[in-house]
Amino acid sequence: MIVVMKPDATQSQIAATEQKLKQLGFGYQTIVGEQRVVIGATGDQRDKVMSLALEWDGVEKVVPILQPYKLASREFRPESSVIKVKDVAIGNGELVVAAGPCAVETDEQMRKTAAAVKAAGGQILRGGAYKPRTSPYSFQGYGVAGLKMIKHAADDAGLLVITEVVEPNDVETVAEYTDIVQIGARNMQNYSLLKKVGKLHQPVMLKRGLASTIEEWLMAAEYILSEGNSDVILCERGIRTYETTTRNTLDLSAVPVLKALTHLPVFVDPSHGTGKRHLVPAMAKAAVAVGADGLLIEIHPNPAEALSDGPQSLELESFAMLMRQLGYLH
Amino acid sequence: MIVVMKPDATQSQIAATEQKLKQLGFGYQTIVGEQRVVIGATGDQRDKVMSLALEWDGVEKVVPILQPYKLASREFRPESSVIKVKDVAIGNGELVVAAGPCAVETDEQMRKTAAAVKAAGGQILRGGAYKPRTSPYSFQGYGVAGLKMIKHAADDAGLLVITEVVEPNDVETVAEYTDIVQIGARNMQNYSLLKKVGKLHQPVMLKRGLASTIEEWLMAAEYILSEGNSDVILCERGIRTYETTTRNTLDLSAVPVLKALTHLPVFVDPSHGTGKRHLVPAMAKAAVAVGADGLLIEIHPNPAEALSDGPQSLELESFAMLMRQLGYLH
Amino acid sequence: MIVVMKPDATQSQIAATEQKLKQLGFGYQTIVGEQRVVIGATGDQRDKVMSLALEWDGVEKVVPILQPYKLASREFRPESSVIKVKDVAIGNGELVVAAGPCAVETDEQMRKTAAAVKAAGGQILRGGAYKPRTSPYSFQGYGVAGLKMIKHAADDAGLLVITEVVEPNDVETVAEYTDIVQIGARNMQNYSLLKKVGKLHQPVMLKRGLASTIEEWLMAAEYILSEGNSDVILCERGIRTYETTTRNTLDLSAVPVLKALTHLPVFVDPSHGTGKRHLVPAMAKAAVAVGADGLLIEIHPNPAEALSDGPQSLELESFAMLMRQLGYLH
Amino acid sequence: MIVVMKPDATQSQIAATEQKLKQLGFGYQTIVGEQRVVIGATGDQRDKVMSLALEWDGVEKVVPILQPYKLASREFRPESSVIKVKDVAIGNGELVVAAGPCAVETDEQMRKTAAAVKAAGGQILRGGAYKPRTSPYSFQGYGVAGLKMIKHAADDAGLLVITEVVEPNDVETVAEYTDIVQIGARNMQNYSLLKKVGKLHQPVMLKRGLASTIEEWLMAAEYILSEGNSDVILCERGIRTYETTTRNTLDLSAVPVLKALTHLPVFVDPSHGTGKRHLVPAMAKAAVAVGADGLLIEIHPNPAEALSDGPQSLELESFAMLMRQLGYLH
Repeated sequence: MIVVMKPDATQSQIAATEQKLKQLGFGYQTIVGEQRVVIGATGDQRDKVMSLALEWDGVEKVVPILQPYKLASREFRPESSVIKVKDVAIGNGELVVAAGPCAVETDEQMRKTAAAVKAAGGQILRGGAYKPRTSPYSFQGYGVAGLKMIKHAADDAGLLVITEVVEPNDVETVAEYTDIVQIGARNMQNYSLLKKVGKLHQPVMLKRGLASTIEEWLMAAEYILSEGNSDVILCERGIRTYETTTRNTLDLSAVPVLKALTHLPVFVDPSHGTGKRHLVPAMAKAAVAVGADGLLIEIHPNPAEALSDGPQSLELESFAMLMRQLGYLH
Repeated sequence: MIVVMKPDATQSQIAATEQKLKQLGFGYQTIVGEQRVVIGATGDQRDKVMSLALEWDGVEKVVPILQPYKLASREFRPESSVIKVKDVAIGNGELVVAAGPCAVETDEQMRKTAAAVKAAGGQILRGGAYKPRTSPYSFQGYGVAGLKMIKHAADDAGLLVITEVVEPNDVETVAEYTDIVQIGARNMQNYSLLKKVGKLHQPVMLKRGLASTIEEWLMAAEYILSEGNSDVILCERGIRTYETTTRNTLDLSAVPVLKALTHLPVFVDPSHGTGKRHLVPAMAKAAVAVGADGLLIEIHPNPAEALSDGPQSLELESFAMLMRQLGYLH
Repeated sequence: MIVVMKPDATQSQIAATEQKLKQLGFGYQTIVGEQRVVIGATGDQRDKVMSLALEWDGVEKVVPILQPYKLASREFRPESSVIKVKDVAIGNGELVVAAGPCAVETDEQMRKTAAAVKAAGGQILRGGAYKPRTSPYSFQGYGVAGLKMIKHAADDAGLLVITEVVEPNDVETVAEYTDIVQIGARNMQNYSLLKKVGKLHQPVMLKRGLASTIEEWLMAAEYILSEGNSDVILCERGIRTYETTTRNTLDLSAVPVLKALTHLPVFVDPSHGTGKRHLVPAMAKAAVAVGADGLLIEIHPNPAEALSDGPQSLELESFAMLMRQLGYLH
Repeated sequence: MIVVMKPDATQSQIAATEQKLKQLGFGYQTIVGEQRVVIGATGDQRDKVMSLALEWDGVEKVVPILQPYKLASREFRPESSVIKVKDVAIGNGELVVAAGPCAVETDEQMRKTAAAVKAAGGQILRGGAYKPRTSPYSFQGYGVAGLKMIKHAADDAGLLVITEVVEPNDVETVAEYTDIVQIGARNMQNYSLLKKVGKLHQPVMLKRGLASTIEEWLMAAEYILSEGNSDVILCERGIRTYETTTRNTLDLSAVPVLKALTHLPVFVDPSHGTGKRHLVPAMAKAAVAVGADGLLIEIHPNPAEALSDGPQSLELESFAMLMRQLGYLH
């Protein structure tokens, strides 16, 4: 880290700062500029020490040099991670598509959807049995009954399952029924939950928080990785901005940014990213163009009857057409 | 709600829309404008129905008229709620001050801090035993040992306790040691946790989410209220913006906005709201000027040694001076 | 517009509101809901009247139904506008590429760049002679000398010219040397400038403001259109968010959103949109996938020597490779 | 500035970087850390050189140490600037209040308003003769006729005048009629306009741009200062965020932040900052509590008839009451 002294820092303040860095086990080197003295400190840069240094007399600011995440970084693991789930490989350059309804509602709904996903060339069936909803009066999901429906439909169609878990106590139960465990945007910084899924032997899809920076997102991934689970898939789903024509602003530049910073695979969710069905196909194609490893798309046999997020769900036929345009289904 | 038809909607689409509203139990009235037909639907406006209506042929958009929260609204309860915790009343027009360190560290730290809070005229001791931290490598709090330290120090000094709970399984334990249970910004939409504290017979302080709208915040309060706990205190702690000179942007206008929309009391946290010690006194005074019912302030006997958030913690003397300026301690 | 009365509005306040709407020339229809009375007013909805109505006793809020822009809307002109500039057509389904340096620096720089643009299949040479810079101490462009350089280089290579104008007094001069006049992000709401270019008989490219909503952007286009110039091209160039890994957040969903709202063609600028060279190719491809009519790309024969925006400029070879990947240059 | 080398930078890349810094006239010092080499460069840090250095082989990032503004900084001028306009001093610790309508409409309106401002203890009459409006169809101000009305009303009442200028060609004209020239939020980065008012011998009030950082704002002030006009007053008026209950989010922490960074006086505009009349008094009091040098408040004898911004204008009586609460008018 770089410790920048105030323009009016005294010689003794500078000496004291050097002394403290030394006591904390840092190497240091002092640079006398025209308007400021800066001290480069070499060694392990925990945020604790940066906060400490800010308190010392004469210190103006402290600039970190190293990234705060380690296991998630490309420096730690230069080659891209490929995550294998049964016969599906995520992150090996081939597009993987997970599709399904926002909420698991009925056996028939799931059966029809699973057939459509399979027929269109998708690999994973999505659907929520536990729904975090803004309003306590909205439908909150069918729980275990929902898990059984999605598992059953996926098995029949020969698809993998992805479904969300929203609280630590449900992790084992959800893990029984799903191939990939999803952590939703609202829970990206629910650290109890992250630690719990970090102990699973199953891949975890970690959605970006509503207004999370890419660094915070990678730090959340680090929570899972540091518990021993190295199979983390990131999923960009739009961030909060001032623009109101879309539900969120899908940050597609996050994909190449992440590809440079981390070895983890990256999905894109154009459904939550826009909130509007008519924008989904264009943004799905753009996500592929930008290098996403996979797509997470909301589809429904009858969006007008959906118990949740109908307006952003594609009809099964539109989904098939999109998959054709993406090069599946010749 | 108002259903706005597309400019080219046909007569039969309009008739079908009216028919569907009727079937769903709505009253309706149709207004023929120069460029659009709009249909006013009267009845209970669940978000489910608004989504449904968006799917109907010829419908352009659906505009809600009523607020989605009920128990939290001033319409439901016109007079301001006053929350009594032992001998302290929150929301009755007198400023209440909670102060203490970000993290509970030692008995001595808590004892010194409690004495300073009491001496300065504060009523509540704050301090975290469970710390949600961005990095898995940062200090995460001392758990039950920390709860005991804060409880002991507060009892000795004659102060109330406020401390944070971060996961549903800890709710009962935390509740044993604290007078007010705090839900942090990262957990504002952790619905399992909200439901759990909604069953307590203790006040809950609900901090605003990192990038939450005021409506989402009141909906989170509604989760607690709808479980039966009517003692919810809101706490503004800054929102995420593009500005980088402060850690967050403290949205003081949220206080008078909330005073118009809800009967619940409102605190302000100028420490997290700014992230910088030298900004805290000015923003604390502004919070009082704008009508806050209370302040939540980070203080530490030795910020340079704090295990968390040192840079935004006031020293005990600066806190005493601020309290004097706020009219405590003559 | 819809006038929503307060829950406690009296019969006489409702009657007075109806009376005032009538006096202002509106038709109206009153809907009595369970919790609110709403009045639908039909007629011309100027923002003036909406503000007025907000002042009336008993009125809670006023909801607009119609969009505030007219000439820019798809309702006004359902078919997409195709803008012809000499032999280049913009908006007819074929991708148009404008490329060049941020700032015009030397004849040689422009000659080399123009040759590279032409060879790669591009149609338009970009380059700034008037540079709006955040710092007064940064290079501000060569003015007329710069205009001559870009015009000369483009003519030699058989390319069109696009260049920015930053103040009303320069509009005629700039227009002499350029085929398309560019209004930069910082000037999107410089209404004197918009009115001036609205009187030109040349196409205008209007970049989205730094933090402009799509509605504000279309209102800015309306300023130009309402002066008589119907050849407006919109250009998405990233919006301001809290994320810091990119200079701006490129809002690619703006392209399909605009395609639904307006008949005007839409370009995307992945260079300013990201601020980092290594992100430009991926985002350029995504822009094409999402349906952009054209790209505006910064390139430079030697970015390391660029007087402005070097870090986001592609080298000429990387540009040629990108064009090949986009299907130009077989 | 600090040049951070990539983790895999070679010795020869490091040597080449040192060589280039030397050639550019920088002193430098190289620090070898465990994971990175960083090079501290001392000398004048123009943004040009930082961009250049980013291009060198093996360089990962470049971190600025010095602020990019000079004349506006407290380092340049440690004591606070006091700006004297006739008998009013701005920045000397006493609150100055400017009030008036958004738009100058009639002689009578201005006369009534001026009398109310004077009677309440205000010092400056505000009112716009040139109005930058989002819609080309909205009222744009009466121009010179408006300037005459406000000047006349202010002279009669013994008040100073502040009014906005929106284009370079009008600067001299506006300056004739006003004591303080206002640059509005939309024009904060209209550099032609800034340079023009930088040549005036009159104070300039520079409002913060809609989504400007504090650094960009000070850079805009630097444009005016560097032209020779040292009398710049900053005015916080709210920034754009995702929150929709207020028109903007008033960033009151900007006041103490600016007080630390710059010697220039700071006003606050609670009217544009909130967009709602009922929030203005609370935010005005908070602005005073936080240390603002002055307030800019919209008032109108009859807000329901205002041609612009009626909903955020205080009635004359409410203004008088606010002034009483602020300690004027005993």
